[in-house]
Amino acid sequence: MSVPVSVILDRKGREVLTISGEQRLAEVISSLVEHRVGALVVTDAAGAVEGIVSERDVMRQLAESGADALRLPVSEVMTRDVTTCTLSTGATELAATMTEGRIRHLPVVDDGRLVGIVSIGDVVKSRIDELATQAESLERYVTGTAY
Amino acid sequence: MSVPVSVILDRKGREVLTISGEQRLAEVISSLVEHRVGALVVTDAAGAVEGIVSERDVMRQLAESGADALRLPVSEVMTRDVTTCTLSTGATELAATMTEGRIRHLPVVDDGRLVGIVSIGDVVKSRIDELATQAESLERYVTGTAY
Repeated sequence: MSVPVSVILDRKGREVLTISGEQRLAEVISSLVEHRVGALVVTDAAGAVEGIVSERDVMRQLAESGADALRLPVSEVMTRDVTTCTLSTGATELAATMTEGRIRHLPVVDDGRLVGIVSIGDVVKSRIDELATQAESLERYVTGTAY
Repeated sequence: MSVPVSVILDRKGREVLTISGEQRLAEVISSLVEHRVGALVVTDAAGAVEGIVSERDVMRQLAESGADALRLPVSEVMTRDVTTCTLSTGATELAATMTEGRIRHLPVVDDGRLVGIVSIGDVVKSRIDELATQAESLERYVTGTAY
């Protein structure tokens, strides 16, 4: 049994950092560093998901264009083909999707609306939390304080 | 029981991408993108570990110095206080260390020598592989082909 995305979001919060496609790559970098995250979701004026822009996308564009990359609009650098998940997706499926696609961030979409984002760090943290809970239950069982 | 680092390295290989502290940040970016990895180990002429430089370090320096960051030497940007692991560290401990430190790469050191590197992606992949093996054993047991 693996924890669903809804539980992961209950713990980490549902705030999603977004940026518009017209902003510059330099602004992506500032925002990623300020908020200590690895990706921003690119949304249009109505809030619909247009793409995702990650540290990896920034690096790729810098390797291609050098310093000029910093002035490019987000829309030219972002990944348009966004893999998403839902509130009911399980942590194990998340992990498999991230491993296969070599991606570290999945926006969470519910009924067409962006409701959160999960990172590979969140998946690992949820596994650690799960193991801690199991260890605690076992300890309570062994010490006889559970029942 | 969690898989030790030695098993993870048996699967992924023991090659570690390194760079010297005198090289420029632009060269870090090229190497990360070319090899599709998130961090390089910084070594001196004798091969001793001096630091680690990751996508996150590159982003931080770009946010601080803009385009000038690209010309800075690696030694000014790298993280000097490197958290490492050994061949016998278990995947669960790796995951906990990465979660607590918010780090995604741990160089593997054996007898003072750099023998590999494990990323958060490798930790997640090892968990997926472990689950697949368990599922297979269970299936063989249920279908009666195991014994």
